[in-house]
Amino acid sequence: MTAFNDLMAFQRETSALGQIAGRLGWDQETVMPRGATAQRAEEMAAIEAVLHARRSDPRVADWLEQAAPQDAVGQAQLREIRRAYDRAVKVPADLATAIARVTSAAQGKWAQARADEDVSAFLPVLAEVVSLKRQEGEALAQGGDVYDAMVEDYEPYTTSAQIAAIFDEMRPRLVTLRAAVLERPEPAALSGSFDERDQMRLSQKLAETFGYDLNNGRVDKAVHPFSSGSGLDVRITTRTSETDPFNCFYSTIHEVGHAAYEQGIDRDYLLTPLGSGVSMGVHESQSRIYENQLGRSRAFTGWLFDQMKEAFGDFGIADADAFYATVNRVHNGYIRTEADEVQYNLHIMLRFDLERALMAGDLQVSDLEAAWNDRFKADFGYAVDRPSNGCLQDVHWSVGLFGYFPTYSLGNVYAGCLYQALRGAVPALDAQLAEGDTSGATGWLRENVQQHGGLYAPREIIQRASGVEPGPEPLLGYLEEKFGGLYGL
Amino acid sequence: MTAFNDLMAFQRETSALGQIAGRLGWDQETVMPRGATAQRAEEMAAIEAVLHARRSDPRVADWLEQAAPQDAVGQAQLREIRRAYDRAVKVPADLATAIARVTSAAQGKWAQARADEDVSAFLPVLAEVVSLKRQEGEALAQGGDVYDAMVEDYEPYTTSAQIAAIFDEMRPRLVTLRAAVLERPEPAALSGSFDERDQMRLSQKLAETFGYDLNNGRVDKAVHPFSSGSGLDVRITTRTSETDPFNCFYSTIHEVGHAAYEQGIDRDYLLTPLGSGVSMGVHESQSRIYENQLGRSRAFTGWLFDQMKEAFGDFGIADADAFYATVNRVHNGYIRTEADEVQYNLHIMLRFDLERALMAGDLQVSDLEAAWNDRFKADFGYAVDRPSNGCLQDVHWSVGLFGYFPTYSLGNVYAGCLYQALRGAVPALDAQLAEGDTSGATGWLRENVQQHGGLYAPREIIQRASGVEPGPEPLLGYLEEKFGGLYGL
Repeated sequence: MTAFNDLMAFQRETSALGQIAGRLGWDQETVMPRGATAQRAEEMAAIEAVLHARRSDPRVADWLEQAAPQDAVGQAQLREIRRAYDRAVKVPADLATAIARVTSAAQGKWAQARADEDVSAFLPVLAEVVSLKRQEGEALAQGGDVYDAMVEDYEPYTTSAQIAAIFDEMRPRLVTLRAAVLERPEPAALSGSFDERDQMRLSQKLAETFGYDLNNGRVDKAVHPFSSGSGLDVRITTRTSETDPFNCFYSTIHEVGHAAYEQGIDRDYLLTPLGSGVSMGVHESQSRIYENQLGRSRAFTGWLFDQMKEAFGDFGIADADAFYATVNRVHNGYIRTEADEVQYNLHIMLRFDLERALMAGDLQVSDLEAAWNDRFKADFGYAVDRPSNGCLQDVHWSVGLFGYFPTYSLGNVYAGCLYQALRGAVPALDAQLAEGDTSGATGWLRENVQQHGGLYAPREIIQRASGVEPGPEPLLGYLEEKFGGLYGL
Repeated sequence: MTAFNDLMAFQRETSALGQIAGRLGWDQETVMPRGATAQRAEEMAAIEAVLHARRSDPRVADWLEQAAPQDAVGQAQLREIRRAYDRAVKVPADLATAIARVTSAAQGKWAQARADEDVSAFLPVLAEVVSLKRQEGEALAQGGDVYDAMVEDYEPYTTSAQIAAIFDEMRPRLVTLRAAVLERPEPAALSGSFDERDQMRLSQKLAETFGYDLNNGRVDKAVHPFSSGSGLDVRITTRTSETDPFNCFYSTIHEVGHAAYEQGIDRDYLLTPLGSGVSMGVHESQSRIYENQLGRSRAFTGWLFDQMKEAFGDFGIADADAFYATVNRVHNGYIRTEADEVQYNLHIMLRFDLERALMAGDLQVSDLEAAWNDRFKADFGYAVDRPSNGCLQDVHWSVGLFGYFPTYSLGNVYAGCLYQALRGAVPALDAQLAEGDTSGATGWLRENVQQHGGLYAPREIIQRASGVEPGPEPLLGYLEEKFGGLYGL
């Protein structure tokens, strides 16, 4: 057992250092003084260098060779340590450094190009990023599919062919549903002004309502909502807009989904490779089921309607049915992050197909804008009006995140599977949600998904929890039924 | 130059990691969720292990041997790197681990013993701490004076004999001054209630008034006020008590003194061994001169009186002269941290003599309480009523801080020297302070002390700035004049 124990002790320190790096990110987005940016960059680089050295430490290879775990959990720990080690040693140090340098510059150029609506100012550096990331993908793939190797960073044990099969099944039905919904009269949008301190108060209440443990977490404001940290210290952020309280509330519920996953993991896995969510897709399944299937349900929005009336008085929505329609209003738009449940996945599929083609060399960076605009017109029925509403809207590619986008939709697909099983397992679900009681739902998710952390591969945990092979049918059925009902289709 | 540059690059990463460890400490005292304590302990241990490994990295010895700095700044950098390296390699790893383990337990036992007023419950673990720290001191001293080696950790290039000579000169005059002041009628104490949010607002204004740069810092609340960080990210905390706004305001000004020192260091030294304050004593000279010589002056308190009337309305003090007397009220008490300018140093000298005797083996832990109580009676004229007001009041010894206490009084002595020189250099000082303008004072301190960071040894920087050999006469003269005037002596 010595080699196994030594490896786990080493790994535990590495996990603790990883938590520190994550907390520096939290600090930077919430409380860091503005003038500290340059120093923080050096601090982050220093701890990343320590982490990289540990991840590729030759002793890890020796320990892995000698370690003899005594149970399935130990084997899963070794599986994840081996995966991280193999990944760390495959990428040459100078390539990793070049990627860090170029993406750091590219992010600034992207922000400027987006502000200037100038695609051509971004394309040269994007071409560099694509070239370097393709080299990294080739180093990781070692003869296999380059894009698959990238997906592996965010969604391990999952191939792009599996994802494409799911997406190909979804796209026509979503295009059809979207078109049908948008031919119907639009529900009222929210209007008026909502005090931002009252929003934060209700936000805090919503976090607790969804089981977020404030003894091991906290809620702050940030420009972009996020969840950060694992184990005993899992913090979330949200944001407020005076005219759009739903942004605050549903950002909060979404991040609570991520945070509840991290908080719900078996404490035996604390600071081990199994002590964090297993993949971005499974993570997103938790945030999405909290936000959408639960948080935007007729039952829960009935409770939320009362909470909002209590916090803000009459805000011009007649009753709980009208409120439900307003919360779930489908509306034309260009921006992925503002999209509703019906349209969101169409935004993702567009990006998935384009980035996969970029990595395969089937699409050139110079043709990206035209390809984006053509695809958008085909799926959404109208033309992109300017680059900031089109191919310049997301930060991801500038910072080298290729293979990340599809995990958002995988999360929705997984949430669909889980929600189907949850409804079967908790017959009183709607009655509970109507009282603002999420414990039936969150308890089931904790028991069946969250507690396992990294123990099972992503598709395996979804299958174990939902009893079905992960696929898009439950999500599509849920969307067609929900929006069919809302829009009288 | 290669060895020198390699060493400085290595050192720069170490400094960045040190900043991260410091920021974790800030996080723990201000924003960390309560339930995260156990995880944070592992995180701190992990980064401390990284730091220790770097500080004692054998490459540092090689680089030090080969490095050829080209100027005095480079030589000073090497001097500080060598000092840290020598210190790191002298202490056996198992001894360092034992000290960390025992002091961690001792802190809890001290807190419980203090709550229970039970010295005997603390003495066994204190004896362990003393024994281990003495072993550490012997390892560091290598035949030299054990207590000197401990002082070196906090006040480099300074011997306990130098400190004792200063203290021996101070003690009789302070005892005399104290006794004379306390025979006179006592000024009114502050009474009433002061809104804590208004305290924090005025606190923030005071921080800016004393030149604290909020672009590279922030003010939060914590149980114990502190300043944390160097360079571009220097944060302070303060505290509020509804009945005692002076605690908030003077804690803030004190911490701003520390923070202004760190913020004022030449940016060329960022993340180098010269990029932090050179010693605890010089640090304390900045916090004390801000807090006392400037912040409690007749001129500045006149301005503060108006600020407080504006914030809180009439609070029962008739005029600025009465306010000045209230701010500087001398009052019997047992607790060091609550002591006024006249009595504070007597508390320190007591601790200095006792801890020096403990380390020399001239005082046994079992005799500590009696020795404390005898000395207190001798200097203050009345008996300690209970251990929490006596030898159990401070956390320092439980966590192994021996050699630290004298730096508080050294700071006061240095502040006395600096203030004497400042008055000569800025004739308009009082006129400026009366307008709430500290720029003459803080500009002079920045120019003559703060900007140099670790470039000069502690006594050298004070001598350069003040033009005199550091000694107690300026402080004693200042105290006798100030309190002689206030109390009509």
